[in-house]
Amino acid sequence: MTTAADIVLGANQYGKGEVRLVRVTRDTATHEIEDLNVTTQLLGDFTDCHATGDNSKVVATDTQKNTVYAFAREHGVGTPENFLLTLSEHFNGSFEWVTGSVLSAESYAWDRIAVDGVGHDHAFARKGGEVRRTTVITEGGETVVVSGFTDATVLKSTGSEFHGFPRDRYTTLGETTDRILATSVTAWWRYAGTDVDFDKTYDAVRQLMLETFATQHSLSLQQTIYAMGSAVLEAFEDIVEVRLSCPNKHHFLVDLEPFGLDNPGEVFFAADRPYGLIQATVERSGGTRRPDVWAAVAGFC
Amino acid sequence: MTTAADIVLGANQYGKGEVRLVRVTRDTATHEIEDLNVTTQLLGDFTDCHATGDNSKVVATDTQKNTVYAFAREHGVGTPENFLLTLSEHFNGSFEWVTGSVLSAESYAWDRIAVDGVGHDHAFARKGGEVRRTTVITEGGETVVVSGFTDATVLKSTGSEFHGFPRDRYTTLGETTDRILATSVTAWWRYAGTDVDFDKTYDAVRQLMLETFATQHSLSLQQTIYAMGSAVLEAFEDIVEVRLSCPNKHHFLVDLEPFGLDNPGEVFFAADRPYGLIQATVERSGGTRRPDVWAAVAGFC
Amino acid sequence: MTTAADIVLGANQYGKGEVRLVRVTRDTATHEIEDLNVTTQLLGDFTDCHATGDNSKVVATDTQKNTVYAFAREHGVGTPENFLLTLSEHFNGSFEWVTGSVLSAESYAWDRIAVDGVGHDHAFARKGGEVRRTTVITEGGETVVVSGFTDATVLKSTGSEFHGFPRDRYTTLGETTDRILATSVTAWWRYAGTDVDFDKTYDAVRQLMLETFATQHSLSLQQTIYAMGSAVLEAFEDIVEVRLSCPNKHHFLVDLEPFGLDNPGEVFFAADRPYGLIQATVERSGGTRRPDVWAAVAGFC
Amino acid sequence: MTTAADIVLGANQYGKGEVRLVRVTRDTATHEIEDLNVTTQLLGDFTDCHATGDNSKVVATDTQKNTVYAFAREHGVGTPENFLLTLSEHFNGSFEWVTGSVLSAESYAWDRIAVDGVGHDHAFARKGGEVRRTTVITEGGETVVVSGFTDATVLKSTGSEFHGFPRDRYTTLGETTDRILATSVTAWWRYAGTDVDFDKTYDAVRQLMLETFATQHSLSLQQTIYAMGSAVLEAFEDIVEVRLSCPNKHHFLVDLEPFGLDNPGEVFFAADRPYGLIQATVERSGGTRRPDVWAAVAGFC
Repeated sequence: MTTAADIVLGANQYGKGEVRLVRVTRDTATHEIEDLNVTTQLLGDFTDCHATGDNSKVVATDTQKNTVYAFAREHGVGTPENFLLTLSEHFNGSFEWVTGSVLSAESYAWDRIAVDGVGHDHAFARKGGEVRRTTVITEGGETVVVSGFTDATVLKSTGSEFHGFPRDRYTTLGETTDRILATSVTAWWRYAGTDVDFDKTYDAVRQLMLETFATQHSLSLQQTIYAMGSAVLEAFEDIVEVRLSCPNKHHFLVDLEPFGLDNPGEVFFAADRPYGLIQATVERSGGTRRPDVWAAVAGFC
Repeated sequence: MTTAADIVLGANQYGKGEVRLVRVTRDTATHEIEDLNVTTQLLGDFTDCHATGDNSKVVATDTQKNTVYAFAREHGVGTPENFLLTLSEHFNGSFEWVTGSVLSAESYAWDRIAVDGVGHDHAFARKGGEVRRTTVITEGGETVVVSGFTDATVLKSTGSEFHGFPRDRYTTLGETTDRILATSVTAWWRYAGTDVDFDKTYDAVRQLMLETFATQHSLSLQQTIYAMGSAVLEAFEDIVEVRLSCPNKHHFLVDLEPFGLDNPGEVFFAADRPYGLIQATVERSGGTRRPDVWAAVAGFC
Repeated sequence: MTTAADIVLGANQYGKGEVRLVRVTRDTATHEIEDLNVTTQLLGDFTDCHATGDNSKVVATDTQKNTVYAFAREHGVGTPENFLLTLSEHFNGSFEWVTGSVLSAESYAWDRIAVDGVGHDHAFARKGGEVRRTTVITEGGETVVVSGFTDATVLKSTGSEFHGFPRDRYTTLGETTDRILATSVTAWWRYAGTDVDFDKTYDAVRQLMLETFATQHSLSLQQTIYAMGSAVLEAFEDIVEVRLSCPNKHHFLVDLEPFGLDNPGEVFFAADRPYGLIQATVERSGGTRRPDVWAAVAGFC
Repeated sequence: MTTAADIVLGANQYGKGEVRLVRVTRDTATHEIEDLNVTTQLLGDFTDCHATGDNSKVVATDTQKNTVYAFAREHGVGTPENFLLTLSEHFNGSFEWVTGSVLSAESYAWDRIAVDGVGHDHAFARKGGEVRRTTVITEGGETVVVSGFTDATVLKSTGSEFHGFPRDRYTTLGETTDRILATSVTAWWRYAGTDVDFDKTYDAVRQLMLETFATQHSLSLQQTIYAMGSAVLEAFEDIVEVRLSCPNKHHFLVDLEPFGLDNPGEVFFAADRPYGLIQATVERSGGTRRPDVWAAVAGFC
């Protein structure tokens, strides 16, 4: 029989979820805004708190939130990655019982509102489209930066085939040499180090992925996402691994024959569920695999 | 005592909700895509169906869906407004017991993916930002088009004040001459007629509203939205009325004093709830008010 | 040409959206909780604020929020309807330029957590299921209470037919004498007055609607919702009108023939979009119709 | 420089996301319904598909969907866990290149609608509250079942303290000996084997967790969730590990002093973001840790 004495605390982490930070840089009349959603999670020796309610090592989640805001004033944001790196140094350096952290941020992009064709000094419209993401993992003295984006919805109206798949008793899908291929890209990439121009790299990686999606003639969504990841690894030496998770957002050609109409690839029903779900890692051969890092990015469950 | 004989059917409508239509125009190698979410609602004499389950006048919602898809092939989309106008003619002209309709559509914008700086022929990225909306109401032989958008999130980092409001026992809010003003604009405008270049007008109205938001020095969100509506009425003679519904998305200046820091309008907490909610109609004096139309746009409850 | 002088403020309202209020009654060891989401909207003479930014008549939305919290302490909640009636008296009685209000609330139900079969004194689990709603409209000295619920998802696995509908060029739907009928009920009812036991009536109306959904053999969703509304009007003299808005959440029988299997009403695909959308009012013959009230419930658009 | 030859496929999986399955058992007039959302992900040798678009090993996601529906007819559902175990045997046994799978399901609970106090034969109301979840992971010939639930929102109106936490430059939070403790529990537990009465265990684990939440006097949310996990391990020998992820849904006591009112733990503002986020594993000492299993449950990122 199991008693309380046989039970121990396993993997755990805690912190503040979704600290919504908007920072205005107003040194000149031309303001800049940075819009982040920051989540902090600390690792360390928190057995006492769990087992007995002794909170003497529990840096309050409210304190973590305050730290995010104070650091935005003291150090600025810069890039989401650099902001989290600075926070990581603080949290890991300030409390001896804190042995690591998983810090993550979503960033929302804004455009200047154009007035007479010129971007306005202090008025902005939220850009929509993909959300930039980053997770900075520190443990055992090592810090790993993983960056990416979610919700980049893309579509090819042709240049996509799917055939040659195995057929069993449960297969009814027809083969096609021309279909719509649409997905909402979630992409993550792991950096080799932390000395990176993160904004510049982000823009370039995103652009390269979209271009590859556009230009790769697709025999399957798997092939497309592998090409997207490969292109990034070929172009960016300081990126060691790419992960892509892509729903195949089905667009079904509507059967218009009952109405006496043909439908030569024109009218589609965009379905919600179910969807294909294709997920893959692209990496350098011989590289070090880091399932621990990806588990941290995926999040506690 | 009320008996079944005393009970009657009042206002009612029915149809198909959220028909997701993607239309590809592929006459040339440079494809175009149109991406709509169409909802149909028919008005008419549907007492028998409700009272006795006699469906002889119930144009099946499945038929309405089929009609949307077939019309996309037969007539194309053109603009969302024109597409709904064509559908309205059909539904109101084909069934003698149908006396009206409320047809609405959301439209999702897509950009061409840039490859080497040039928009790709058949690869697109969903644009994000605001969703274009339209509702076409037909009743009693008259058709009214109302167009607009939702989810246009905009922010001014300065140029916004709020003071001079009355103070009662429950007032604690301080006065301010410099705050962030942020909102997610829902805008609707009623057209005088149906012979309109809807795409061109949409783009121009949207741009004018954003410009006005940017350039109007704001003493209240009310003043800002009134200015946005007024600018539209001044510029577009064929628009007779504008409605705006704008949450005041509060951005609270974080108190950094406990940490020995000042905060000169730099670091903000973007709050979720509650939010101010400012809603107004801007119209021409002497114009005809149409609460029935706005009730139709708002939707059955 | 339209100039600013030709432009006027039309229908408008403003206030605080989604004030999240949790009230604990702790007079005894057996606590009670009330969990509301309150939105206030004031009507009145707000032209100056819109036109010139003169805020002297703008009861700040922050003040409205404070009032909600203060009233929860001073007067308790009681029922959502009574709480809004009290707030309505306050807002309409305290500011001479306020001529009306639209106050609404969502209420979330909680169960006591059972410990050894007995409800716990101060530990609760949120109930899920439908959300109780109410809107209290005051204008021209008159106050109307409309109550209802949303998100009551119900399903009949048999006892539902659909046939006898007209067939045109676009009709492909087959007739059926046995289908799944599923919907997520949005129901609203208008009270004749304000002197009502709102909690008791709410429970009874909800139960009667669900029972009628269960027992009515359905020839169409229209017939079912008409029966649900009629049952309420027959049973509750102080309810003068009922509105129902019900998506027909399609459950499609999966074709298993390609796999050599029959499917006698057993295996279904629950579709997301599109859905049928059936909306109707059930009223007493000769009763007064109140489109203005329903427009207020539906909300500004 | 990296070339295509240096790049390889890493961890990957694919399948069908969110197959919405409703199964009606209608052997007698008293119907039963099972309502699931199934996601399939296959592991195996899929290099060719990614690298060259050779789909000869790609069991189409459409085929996987068909299999889910066909199996619901051929084998029934039983419990979500048993249904996924049966699917796992099929997918892993039918294709030599498939070496594993991650199959998951959400289950939605329904109550019979009570008519005159008796549950109806074929009319149901969706229960709301928590969503039951399960993930069945098969790899290397081993199958692991992890079950749990999400969205169980619970609240204690007293019996919760938080004090004794360390204070640094960024700490402003006051200590409290009486606060509201509210969370939305995500709980997962790993079974030792697959020969389990999954329905019975699910109900008992859920009930034990809620009871422990109710009765544990809380010095921190950490202590509460550790107690919840410990209680499960003490009671269920065939459960080897429990994971809990719990947002601390802050309820802030509203300061009513400016209005001349006290607030003795009665009126609270229920905040949205940020929230505390407390996540922990409770396990038997000496037990085998399975980060690979938890990574699979968390999902690909």
